[in-house]
Amino acid sequence: MNYPNGIKNKIIKKEIHYDNRGMSLEEDLNISNLYYQDKKIAYIYKKPTPIQITKVDYPSRNKAVIKEAYFKEPSTTDYNGLYKGRYIDFEAKETNNTSSFPLANIHPHQINHIKNINNNNGICFLIVRFNKIHKTYLLLAEDFLSFIEQNKRKSIPLSYFEEKAFKVEEKYIPRLDYLKIIDQLLEVS
Amino acid sequence: MNYPNGIKNKIIKKEIHYDNRGMSLEEDLNISNLYYQDKKIAYIYKKPTPIQITKVDYPSRNKAVIKEAYFKEPSTTDYNGLYKGRYIDFEAKETNNTSSFPLANIHPHQINHIKNINNNNGICFLIVRFNKIHKTYLLLAEDFLSFIEQNKRKSIPLSYFEEKAFKVEEKYIPRLDYLKIIDQLLEVS
Repeated sequence: MNYPNGIKNKIIKKEIHYDNRGMSLEEDLNISNLYYQDKKIAYIYKKPTPIQITKVDYPSRNKAVIKEAYFKEPSTTDYNGLYKGRYIDFEAKETNNTSSFPLANIHPHQINHIKNINNNNGICFLIVRFNKIHKTYLLLAEDFLSFIEQNKRKSIPLSYFEEKAFKVEEKYIPRLDYLKIIDQLLEVS
Repeated sequence: MNYPNGIKNKIIKKEIHYDNRGMSLEEDLNISNLYYQDKKIAYIYKKPTPIQITKVDYPSRNKAVIKEAYFKEPSTTDYNGLYKGRYIDFEAKETNNTSSFPLANIHPHQINHIKNINNNNGICFLIVRFNKIHKTYLLLAEDFLSFIEQNKRKSIPLSYFEEKAFKVEEKYIPRLDYLKIIDQLLEVS
């Protein structure tokens, strides 16, 4: 099995160190998605980072070297894929803030994307980890959108997550079983 | 309305020149997808190009300039999105070849991706344009996969497209109404 982006090293590290607290949300999600894929539960993958290329060199006929480029503001979300035949789409964010999630983390184009997914009957959400208090939440697009429509605030208070979002438990395997929450939602609908 | 990647200029050009023969498949698809989005028919978007970044400079605190990077072999497809609540995923390719489509155009990781989408009940296909004979085909993932499983050939002959694929007509608007073909498939299933 091919583990992308050094995931294999992380798994080895995990076995040696036992303590997983130091793993980033992205690493946890990538490992969880590999587990889902391996077990044929779901196919969810990370999109490439959007880059604006401004200068390219061709040192030889078939080789292009990008000599100048910039990180673009993302216009979509980090992850998407398929679960039980349904379109899944989400953005994952960490914050060191202990009482609220700053909305500067989500760009206007991403909000448009989230609206589009939601309007077209995709399953869309944010996964937000509050690093300092070791809590990870899944906030559905509709609750996220209704917050920003009804509030002029620049951040979503933790209390809103406690009230509206679903807590994602950290386990040994899969690290973040966020699809368990989606299961509950699919059962209700 | 915001037209990404200079699409607006292309539309203006189109009105002036009347003849659209010179437009690339990507431009045709981007315009068609904007039409679908505008009319709230579907939400289908292009993924970012995957780049491997090897050197980044930080000339000032908040600004990152990528100084060296390379185009990575794509591990997924060009486009994905939602139509009638279904997950849509496809790769678009042009060829100047008149009798076959060279399989070197599709990377091994992309084939894995196509299999994964297909196995997870997504709607997956290739859109292949034969530039010289002005024909554009939609080939479903299952027919593409069955060809590469049953053949050791390095290209898919045009005759296979004529037999198995669906011809995508070029119209004024939308330029390439490929979802019309998906409609027929959804009706049958």
